[in-house]
Amino acid sequence: MRAGREGVSSTLVKFGEMSTFLNYTFQSFNFRNKQGARPFYDLVANISAEEFGHVELVANAINTMLTGATPNGSRNGGGPGSPLAEVKGVGNPHHFLAGGQGALPQNSQGRPWNGDYVFASGDLVEDLTHNFFLETGARNNKLKVYEMVEHPAARALTGFLLVRGGVHQVAYARAIEKLTGADLTKMFPTPRIPTEKIPESKPHIKRGDHLRLYRFSPSDYLELAAVWNGPHPETGEDLVVVDDPPEGVPAHDLPPQPAVFAPDYAPEEIAQIAAKLREQAGLSKEATGVVASAPGNSRTKTKSSTTKSKSTARRKTPARSR
Amino acid sequence: MRAGREGVSSTLVKFGEMSTFLNYTFQSFNFRNKQGARPFYDLVANISAEEFGHVELVANAINTMLTGATPNGSRNGGGPGSPLAEVKGVGNPHHFLAGGQGALPQNSQGRPWNGDYVFASGDLVEDLTHNFFLETGARNNKLKVYEMVEHPAARALTGFLLVRGGVHQVAYARAIEKLTGADLTKMFPTPRIPTEKIPESKPHIKRGDHLRLYRFSPSDYLELAAVWNGPHPETGEDLVVVDDPPEGVPAHDLPPQPAVFAPDYAPEEIAQIAAKLREQAGLSKEATGVVASAPGNSRTKTKSSTTKSKSTARRKTPARSR
Amino acid sequence: MRAGREGVSSTLVKFGEMSTFLNYTFQSFNFRNKQGARPFYDLVANISAEEFGHVELVANAINTMLTGATPNGSRNGGGPGSPLAEVKGVGNPHHFLAGGQGALPQNSQGRPWNGDYVFASGDLVEDLTHNFFLETGARNNKLKVYEMVEHPAARALTGFLLVRGGVHQVAYARAIEKLTGADLTKMFPTPRIPTEKIPESKPHIKRGDHLRLYRFSPSDYLELAAVWNGPHPETGEDLVVVDDPPEGVPAHDLPPQPAVFAPDYAPEEIAQIAAKLREQAGLSKEATGVVASAPGNSRTKTKSSTTKSKSTARRKTPARSR
Amino acid sequence: MRAGREGVSSTLVKFGEMSTFLNYTFQSFNFRNKQGARPFYDLVANISAEEFGHVELVANAINTMLTGATPNGSRNGGGPGSPLAEVKGVGNPHHFLAGGQGALPQNSQGRPWNGDYVFASGDLVEDLTHNFFLETGARNNKLKVYEMVEHPAARALTGFLLVRGGVHQVAYARAIEKLTGADLTKMFPTPRIPTEKIPESKPHIKRGDHLRLYRFSPSDYLELAAVWNGPHPETGEDLVVVDDPPEGVPAHDLPPQPAVFAPDYAPEEIAQIAAKLREQAGLSKEATGVVASAPGNSRTKTKSSTTKSKSTARRKTPARSR
Amino acid sequence: MRAGREGVSSTLVKFGEMSTFLNYTFQSFNFRNKQGARPFYDLVANISAEEFGHVELVANAINTMLTGATPNGSRNGGGPGSPLAEVKGVGNPHHFLAGGQGALPQNSQGRPWNGDYVFASGDLVEDLTHNFFLETGARNNKLKVYEMVEHPAARALTGFLLVRGGVHQVAYARAIEKLTGADLTKMFPTPRIPTEKIPESKPHIKRGDHLRLYRFSPSDYLELAAVWNGPHPETGEDLVVVDDPPEGVPAHDLPPQPAVFAPDYAPEEIAQIAAKLREQAGLSKEATGVVASAPGNSRTKTKSSTTKSKSTARRKTPARSR
Amino acid sequence: MRAGREGVSSTLVKFGEMSTFLNYTFQSFNFRNKQGARPFYDLVANISAEEFGHVELVANAINTMLTGATPNGSRNGGGPGSPLAEVKGVGNPHHFLAGGQGALPQNSQGRPWNGDYVFASGDLVEDLTHNFFLETGARNNKLKVYEMVEHPAARALTGFLLVRGGVHQVAYARAIEKLTGADLTKMFPTPRIPTEKIPESKPHIKRGDHLRLYRFSPSDYLELAAVWNGPHPETGEDLVVVDDPPEGVPAHDLPPQPAVFAPDYAPEEIAQIAAKLREQAGLSKEATGVVASAPGNSRTKTKSSTTKSKSTARRKTPARSR
Repeated sequence: MRAGREGVSSTLVKFGEMSTFLNYTFQSFNFRNKQGARPFYDLVANISAEEFGHVELVANAINTMLTGATPNGSRNGGGPGSPLAEVKGVGNPHHFLAGGQGALPQNSQGRPWNGDYVFASGDLVEDLTHNFFLETGARNNKLKVYEMVEHPAARALTGFLLVRGGVHQVAYARAIEKLTGADLTKMFPTPRIPTEKIPESKPHIKRGDHLRLYRFSPSDYLELAAVWNGPHPETGEDLVVVDDPPEGVPAHDLPPQPAVFAPDYAPEEIAQIAAKLREQAGLSKEATGVVASAPGNSRTKTKSSTTKSKSTARRKTPARSR
Repeated sequence: MRAGREGVSSTLVKFGEMSTFLNYTFQSFNFRNKQGARPFYDLVANISAEEFGHVELVANAINTMLTGATPNGSRNGGGPGSPLAEVKGVGNPHHFLAGGQGALPQNSQGRPWNGDYVFASGDLVEDLTHNFFLETGARNNKLKVYEMVEHPAARALTGFLLVRGGVHQVAYARAIEKLTGADLTKMFPTPRIPTEKIPESKPHIKRGDHLRLYRFSPSDYLELAAVWNGPHPETGEDLVVVDDPPEGVPAHDLPPQPAVFAPDYAPEEIAQIAAKLREQAGLSKEATGVVASAPGNSRTKTKSSTTKSKSTARRKTPARSR
Repeated sequence: MRAGREGVSSTLVKFGEMSTFLNYTFQSFNFRNKQGARPFYDLVANISAEEFGHVELVANAINTMLTGATPNGSRNGGGPGSPLAEVKGVGNPHHFLAGGQGALPQNSQGRPWNGDYVFASGDLVEDLTHNFFLETGARNNKLKVYEMVEHPAARALTGFLLVRGGVHQVAYARAIEKLTGADLTKMFPTPRIPTEKIPESKPHIKRGDHLRLYRFSPSDYLELAAVWNGPHPETGEDLVVVDDPPEGVPAHDLPPQPAVFAPDYAPEEIAQIAAKLREQAGLSKEATGVVASAPGNSRTKTKSSTTKSKSTARRKTPARSR
Repeated sequence: MRAGREGVSSTLVKFGEMSTFLNYTFQSFNFRNKQGARPFYDLVANISAEEFGHVELVANAINTMLTGATPNGSRNGGGPGSPLAEVKGVGNPHHFLAGGQGALPQNSQGRPWNGDYVFASGDLVEDLTHNFFLETGARNNKLKVYEMVEHPAARALTGFLLVRGGVHQVAYARAIEKLTGADLTKMFPTPRIPTEKIPESKPHIKRGDHLRLYRFSPSDYLELAAVWNGPHPETGEDLVVVDDPPEGVPAHDLPPQPAVFAPDYAPEEIAQIAAKLREQAGLSKEATGVVASAPGNSRTKTKSSTTKSKSTARRKTPARSR
Repeated sequence: MRAGREGVSSTLVKFGEMSTFLNYTFQSFNFRNKQGARPFYDLVANISAEEFGHVELVANAINTMLTGATPNGSRNGGGPGSPLAEVKGVGNPHHFLAGGQGALPQNSQGRPWNGDYVFASGDLVEDLTHNFFLETGARNNKLKVYEMVEHPAARALTGFLLVRGGVHQVAYARAIEKLTGADLTKMFPTPRIPTEKIPESKPHIKRGDHLRLYRFSPSDYLELAAVWNGPHPETGEDLVVVDDPPEGVPAHDLPPQPAVFAPDYAPEEIAQIAAKLREQAGLSKEATGVVASAPGNSRTKTKSSTTKSKSTARRKTPARSR
Repeated sequence: MRAGREGVSSTLVKFGEMSTFLNYTFQSFNFRNKQGARPFYDLVANISAEEFGHVELVANAINTMLTGATPNGSRNGGGPGSPLAEVKGVGNPHHFLAGGQGALPQNSQGRPWNGDYVFASGDLVEDLTHNFFLETGARNNKLKVYEMVEHPAARALTGFLLVRGGVHQVAYARAIEKLTGADLTKMFPTPRIPTEKIPESKPHIKRGDHLRLYRFSPSDYLELAAVWNGPHPETGEDLVVVDDPPEGVPAHDLPPQPAVFAPDYAPEEIAQIAAKLREQAGLSKEATGVVASAPGNSRTKTKSSTTKSKSTARRKTPARSR
């Protein structure tokens, strides 16, 4: 199981979702002459919004894979015991010693994501060239992760991200073509494995997700269509801008892992306090939030959890300034 | 001017907005037993959403300060010339050599933000203790930045962030009190300068922004009120949950800086291409986006640009899974 | 055994003894207005002295765990052979390739302790808040290490350090209370496992070590008592300042590990040279130092070695300027 | 003044006192077969103890240089003002923004000391070779710092450290000679400037400090004399082991710097609380600690403060296990 | 002068010659199926050889700029003096405190080049995409450096490197086109300043250096011509493979800088020793090496030194395995 | 197999060939007064050239060890499959996820080589002292690697490098002796294992390679003989300068590893394109390069591949400026 998490963790670092999210974020914050170059600004800013959702998706998959790695049973009043003895030497020890069996912005060797991974030269052609390279690097990385992992949640994750990442590859290639005439779509697929050959990608392709750029603002990013149009370079189907973000789904509710004190050594105490606070504040007796049911066993409910992960990604809408 | 940017850059690293944003983001992604501890989950997740907006605010202020640092005049067909000669030895050279006179996730000495700054132990009391410490560290840092900077945009930024940071300090103190009974609000203000003494903070306090927690989701985070209630520890006024996020404002449109090729050596070419693409896509002839007018001279228009920055922050609503 | 060392190594980095030692050291070096704030200066400076001893304790435990990991037999005149073949892939390879089966200031993934872990803002309330957070983070880390390790030396180490770390948690909470009125002891225990439930901590609690602050200077740090007084927050017993540092014990004498050339490929040659030098210098024929007997087999003699480790810690007295 | 601090800060990183202190510390913790190689163990462990005092000395010098860099006047009830405006662009901004005008374990460019600077191979000849190289690198660095600084405190510091560092150079050369016969003292002085040519070193040479190795334990490290004997390689005078550590002096009491809230925005409040706590604890009404008088103006009192720094170094006695 | 070196130093890090050299070096070492993909292997390996020469060129320019920064006069037997006082706060202090007024593989803020800058995925299309992006990033960086520096040696250096870097941009674009059909040369020039507009580039263009790929092996890399052919994308002239490496020139002989002990505090002593050794070895009385005459004054002899730098680059021929 | 690569990877970082290569390279670039100190310049520059070849040798060995780690079979048109599942948790995941089963300038824990490892003080005695220490550290590291690895390619590599590294140890010791009179050869062997005891070193010693310094320039570095002369410190045989570099051998041709897309998912496509390009360019129909035959199975052909590695090293001749 170790290397499964290894692979997935790698999508939180250099060629992963933290990088795509924060590269496009800083590029759009710093974008000069937004009005003059509106279609390109809209593209970068809008994809940035989608990438934030992908960071959550990756975190979700890692959290799911980590759930159950330690014994879940209640501890009957005793001391700490040895619940972590069985994860000795299993993957990144930070997941257990620093974190609470949760995702961290670092790779499986404990090296963190860092701001040097952000490239924002301000030169539009240069930044788009970088983004195209970043997306191909991310695709390369994800294909290898796919080849390494066996956990269904990890395969579902990569299958979905490969489809959406492919959309971004095409988007940046189109932007460069519109600006300079250079047609980078001739390089597809890079690496040379068509996404449609990947079983976990197929359902997303079937419903047309490889053709769609979702607009993550109700009133902004209207000029996506000036870049995102024409035929898909591999299938020839028409590229489409969808005016709404993908539908959202409830967040996962991850079960407590008392071995690592997450959210507490005695989680039920917190629940009692929460209930009391709710009451005192005049709120409903029951927790008001809507969550996806906790995956009791991370392996058996994989299918449904996958579906959720996917749709979660689609409703991320980090609203930005217009 | 150098140290002014120095100060502001420091709010993009260890004790700044990148850290508050990404700490709360990962903590909320990884939160175990969300339903059982709903008021606390809602608090952390909701503040995370606000912090993303603060990252944009800081970037905006830096971009405003950098605008005009190099000559703006068009280059009449010639070679590169020496437009950067006058920023020799002025502050972080990365702003000119790596970036396009834009914000980067690094401090003034070029050291990047990194994922080691994220603390997410999963233990709720521990994470809240961290967040309380992080907010006091951020307040300490921002007060010193305030003392160092003279540029009005930087003073306006810090004045506003000190008010909102103060809200988060109180919020985490309240959460700890609700969970454990320990009343950390007795430590306020830390450092021992009341925010109300800061001229640039006063207008925000006057309109009550030091009392409000904005809810950054139309349908979620309903249990904020279970933690955020009672009197403000310094003024005694009632704490209030506002059901809507703060109103948004258009993004700044930063003028081109051809000296660093942002967005191009010849920005007008891109504008022409954009116009043509818009037309081909059947969009309006004019750029559709709404932006705040570009600050032609970063010093003279400070007042209005400040107002914008402030309100920009208030409308950030990175929607999250319910 | 790998993860055992993994756990223990983690106490030499961010939330471990190197950090507590060097944070309090720099804070006390830099302390402004020592006389005006004497009780607080004395507290920080005195705990710094104890923490240095803890660094040695941790190093000792790691060295004990590493002893015997490679074959001990003498090499009869031959070449290097393959004595390290059996530690392939076992834990941090630096312990064998860079070090001589000895402790290094780095975690199990080879990432070193670094000076960014030192927080010394100079603001007393802020620094104490940090120290309180650092001690709770260290307690969280050590409890998890305890849960992971099985080697008796590692369990003995963590059992002892949890008691002393608990004392420091209380000390910083008290200091904050004395300064601001905020009572952080209501948060105890954090994490929510009472130290008294830990078998290896019990003997130390039984002899009252959870109540004592040892004074690590014969003539200084007299004002510890102005902060360290009143009842223990968990047991209600009186807190006590002990005027002498804990009694010392001889250093461990670790056996040679010729596989890694520590202290040499042919250790006996060095011993002969040393004997000769001693003689030439008119010193005694036998080595003059007093050491604890070498643990020939790191597993069988654990009990006694533990006792030693514990007492070693108690006699560390890095004398400081008055 | 900037580069003065720049130079001095560099002695807290790679080739400075943090490195010598922690290299020898870890080497002595990990030393295998202490008894068999006693003279060498005693040498490394004893020098480690002295180096800790040097770290304090360097911190002291930096703190003295930073004192007064910001306005000292009390702030009459107002907000923060602009007290840091005048240190804009002056040296490492961390000294003001992160720290409280105090020393930090980082160089002037904000890069921290890190554990990779510790070399502890366990092979005695190899470690001694490293230590010899480290001391020559440190001498090279300090001579250049001396050439760069003009502040008398910095010159006094380097003048003293060059004498003591020279002692350590000789010590490691002697150790290698005793072990292998290779006489590295023929390389002295490296770099090729005799220490006796340095005005600030002369008084220390005059009183014989270039010949002495102080024994930092009342009962241990008795075998120093087996290595430290014979003539000084440059002067021919006899090397001497002094059985007591150098006499200590009180710690400096650095005046408050309210601009950076050190120890508080309103330092007198803390003094009042401290007085009250002392009273409640039945201690003397006056602060009990003995400190060197605060250098009101860092420039005028340089001479006496220098004397203190020097003697402070001499009494550092971080007691270690026998 | 500071920023001049700042700019040039930046060409030794992320987007500079160390990166191009070591990226192509590792890619060619690791190249799989060299025979099957010979034209591409030859291209990458051959450019790697040229880039090593560029590292030397950059080092030369920095060394020239640093020469004379400290007083050159002999020191008449005295102590160190204050020769570095005048470089206080001038640029990267490492050049004086760590180095001997010489180039270091780090940027002006002291952050070193590191191996994370090497991208070697093994996927040929991906690696070529990276290399194309790296070359455009390097061009962007160098154009900005050009705009910032005024020292003639630095302008000459960048003028020359922009021509050769342009050749590599075209080369990787051609390689991608040959492999995939995507024509990236349509993006040129990126950034949008034609190299021919740069005065210091013109002489190199005039003699056709923008069209030539030099073959850095007498017997290998014969298949460069399979990629490097056709018209230059900007000028339409024919691309040419030159079968010999550019003619070499003698290395610069940099004058001693006794202030930083380079090569010694008393350089003449070394010269005397060298002469004696030469004699003892039966070599000629005079030094046998051929060097360019030392630039006594770095400003007056710039023109000739530039010419040399240029030709030095051309004769670098790090021979590689066939 | 993991630790085998672990060991070998460590020779690409701090105490490995990247460090020796780049230390000597920068030292020789920056060498001041080359003519005055010619024998020493020639020595450093010439060894630098040899070390570059050693970097390639190490890369070769790692590549050989990685070859075959994933299934080699062609993929018949399908999707990615799970070819990396079997390397889960096996060594540095970067070799598979970031690289294409190829060497990277990082250790087995993914930490990269960095420019801080370069020491170039400019002071000749100091730099030579460093180089001597670096070579002993490298010897220590390589002996331990030898003890850990069992793969014949790795043993052959270390056996050879120990001989050549030993030559460099002697060379720097001689240089120091010639300059200062200090005879460091008395310390040999360090560590205390004679190279001649190592089976894989014996053949190289037998043919006299422990006595030879090869001159890596046809016309330069003539003064090597002024330093490299006299008897070998361990064997007493005469040291010899060989006027030609060692004879070269063809580069290895590593077989494709389609699992990681190296050089492609479908390598045969690239071969077809290459053939066509060759034809269009009027080159021979067959690939023109000469390569060593690909090791189909990395274990069976070890012997011959070793021989090649060795001789490859001997012909590296990175030509430098005279």
